[in-house]
Amino acid sequence: MKPSDIATPSPASTQPKPDDTTRYQRGLEKLREIDGEAGQRVIDALAPIAPDFARYLIEFPFGDIYSRPQLDLKSREIATVAALTALGNATPQLKVHVHGALNVGCSRDEIVELMMQMAVYAGFPAALNGLFAAQEVFTERGLLAV
Amino acid sequence: MKPSDIATPSPASTQPKPDDTTRYQRGLEKLREIDGEAGQRVIDALAPIAPDFARYLIEFPFGDIYSRPQLDLKSREIATVAALTALGNATPQLKVHVHGALNVGCSRDEIVELMMQMAVYAGFPAALNGLFAAQEVFTERGLLAV
Amino acid sequence: MKPSDIATPSPASTQPKPDDTTRYQRGLEKLREIDGEAGQRVIDALAPIAPDFARYLIEFPFGDIYSRPQLDLKSREIATVAALTALGNATPQLKVHVHGALNVGCSRDEIVELMMQMAVYAGFPAALNGLFAAQEVFTERGLLAV
Amino acid sequence: MKPSDIATPSPASTQPKPDDTTRYQRGLEKLREIDGEAGQRVIDALAPIAPDFARYLIEFPFGDIYSRPQLDLKSREIATVAALTALGNATPQLKVHVHGALNVGCSRDEIVELMMQMAVYAGFPAALNGLFAAQEVFTERGLLAV
Amino acid sequence: MKPSDIATPSPASTQPKPDDTTRYQRGLEKLREIDGEAGQRVIDALAPIAPDFARYLIEFPFGDIYSRPQLDLKSREIATVAALTALGNATPQLKVHVHGALNVGCSRDEIVELMMQMAVYAGFPAALNGLFAAQEVFTERGLLAV
Amino acid sequence: MKPSDIATPSPASTQPKPDDTTRYQRGLEKLREIDGEAGQRVIDALAPIAPDFARYLIEFPFGDIYSRPQLDLKSREIATVAALTALGNATPQLKVHVHGALNVGCSRDEIVELMMQMAVYAGFPAALNGLFAAQEVFTERGLLAV
Repeated sequence: MKPSDIATPSPASTQPKPDDTTRYQRGLEKLREIDGEAGQRVIDALAPIAPDFARYLIEFPFGDIYSRPQLDLKSREIATVAALTALGNATPQLKVHVHGALNVGCSRDEIVELMMQMAVYAGFPAALNGLFAAQEVFTERGLLAV
Repeated sequence: MKPSDIATPSPASTQPKPDDTTRYQRGLEKLREIDGEAGQRVIDALAPIAPDFARYLIEFPFGDIYSRPQLDLKSREIATVAALTALGNATPQLKVHVHGALNVGCSRDEIVELMMQMAVYAGFPAALNGLFAAQEVFTERGLLAV
Repeated sequence: MKPSDIATPSPASTQPKPDDTTRYQRGLEKLREIDGEAGQRVIDALAPIAPDFARYLIEFPFGDIYSRPQLDLKSREIATVAALTALGNATPQLKVHVHGALNVGCSRDEIVELMMQMAVYAGFPAALNGLFAAQEVFTERGLLAV
Repeated sequence: MKPSDIATPSPASTQPKPDDTTRYQRGLEKLREIDGEAGQRVIDALAPIAPDFARYLIEFPFGDIYSRPQLDLKSREIATVAALTALGNATPQLKVHVHGALNVGCSRDEIVELMMQMAVYAGFPAALNGLFAAQEVFTERGLLAV
Repeated sequence: MKPSDIATPSPASTQPKPDDTTRYQRGLEKLREIDGEAGQRVIDALAPIAPDFARYLIEFPFGDIYSRPQLDLKSREIATVAALTALGNATPQLKVHVHGALNVGCSRDEIVELMMQMAVYAGFPAALNGLFAAQEVFTERGLLAV
Repeated sequence: MKPSDIATPSPASTQPKPDDTTRYQRGLEKLREIDGEAGQRVIDALAPIAPDFARYLIEFPFGDIYSRPQLDLKSREIATVAALTALGNATPQLKVHVHGALNVGCSRDEIVELMMQMAVYAGFPAALNGLFAAQEVFTERGLLAV
């Protein structure tokens, strides 16, 4: 292996190979539908360090999983917000998915409720930190009087 | 503190104090509605070791949280199954809540779908172990051809 | 469910229902005894986003659990500081409980010792991050020469 | 959504769509090269419950990630065994990858060494449980005198 | 590196080097004082797979950490039982330390109390699984009517 | 126990006892070889709060574990970077070991590759947060065009 000493992020590597175009396109649309600008910011942030990972992130989670019809998007976002709140070590991603949950039809109160419920399964600190992350998103979107 | 050397589990301690009767009764009904026999088995298993904890388990998660109207029970079980699959260290409780999810209206396919989605947030091993736990519950309930 | 679009945090919801007054009062006193101002700040921070969760936090952990006579408060804080250090994903709560441990009789050296021991059970990074969190609290309280 | 009450696992769903044939074939070969029979058993075990997940497992981790030339397979297995030992909640998958590590050139002693090192980052219990899982694999392969 | 194909666990490797004799001896005595037979069984179980790790386990956690006078052994075991209950992925080690806690002066009721408290910080499933692990130890020691 | 109210960090306590001089010296050299300045900063940061822990950190992980010849340093750093990325709750230590991995021969591309692989075992958020931590180190070392 001959690693380059200074990164020259090849823009080409963000281009899916022909036979994955469908997954990539489908994933990009789904990402935009769910996470909106917050999702795009993640993709942009990855460009200089790991452009291939940006592509996988679009293809597998969004092109494969979220595009499946077996579960509606609101239920999917409930699951993701619950899991990220419980895991407690992925605050940036939790905030992206609080945006996502609001974008696909969850109300502010439902998201708060989910996080309260996580106190039962992952403890009160996990729930508290989830609530404070949600508060930032709600404030950013004008959903919380300040 | 004067601990008894041999436990004499006082049945009285499973009796809620008068002012908590509402929470306890409401919790017990909610536990039965959601988890059915699987929930009752947990309460029974706690009796010899920590009867007070059985009472708290009924009162706080079920009497307080699950009884709130802000989120429907199906959404609550989606959140719990997702979180326990992602955490990956609570298989017995995950199985109780796969029962619970089925009891409140989730389909077999929706539960499988949730667990597949957890591969994105907690890795493929967490998803695999969730699927195998679900498989045991599905088989027990005759929802899976053997 | 009809969520309000803009939150109107109802102050009334922080009022416990009559039959829970004892738990709430007992919890509030216990919270003040243990966590002092740091605990009050958590309750205040929750008011705009999840006032009901502030109430549950007072009632269950402090009104129910910490108020039980089966374990002294110093032992309880040793357990909490150890667990939060080991889990490693709840730094704000760990700092509240370093305050708490000092408030109920743990010495600075005992807290440092606990965190060193957590290297054995959760690894050196968890212990290091616990020590640095404790250092902030010690400095704030003038327990560490700067 | 209309879930079937009794599962009728459609064998067709394990067939990749035409444009993913390359990823699927490449992934299957890589899975066999790395995990051998232990990998195949995971795929077989998934068939009745989540055949689509078996396909994703072949396509993304093995067809996409492990097939990349940027890191040799021995280094990849060192990383996976280390991570699964540290996480500590995926023993079946850890055993599959102890097989995998041996298959791609790690020695018994290197695997033991890795797990000892994890005591530093995830604590002694995680290292101990990793070592006991490895012991089962070594015994199965006749690498440990009994 | 030239790994042996078949392990020939060198008994010599369990012998500490001269300058570590103090740590090793001190650790072995501390291990026996705290964990008794349960601790010895762990050391024995490691002999065929990782005898050096058995030595490190005696030297660092027990010879270095538990031998320090800054915290009494009862407080140390409270911390360890709390942390292992909260982490939830080390049941065998939790059971060893339930033995340890009883050996250094914790009562059955105090251990139960600790685990109940962990519901607040790590969720009800972690507390439940801790209680069931403790129940096995209590039953083994005749501390629980069956 | 008589804790001092105000810390008077005894510089003497960072001096290893005579019989541990070898481990301490060997560990300090290994720490410098692997982690360089980033490692020294951790030791310095510990001095005011827990100087004994700085000594243990040098002696056990570096004097004992990393000094063993059974695994080369590059493989050891691959294991550590993978584990810390997967655990996801030790960003400062992960950054120290991204430095370490570069210091002992890993390329920028290999480190990125490792973190992408962790998406499979610990989820996409853990991989993303690892990549962003690595990006900071790469930028600091001029390995990434800005």
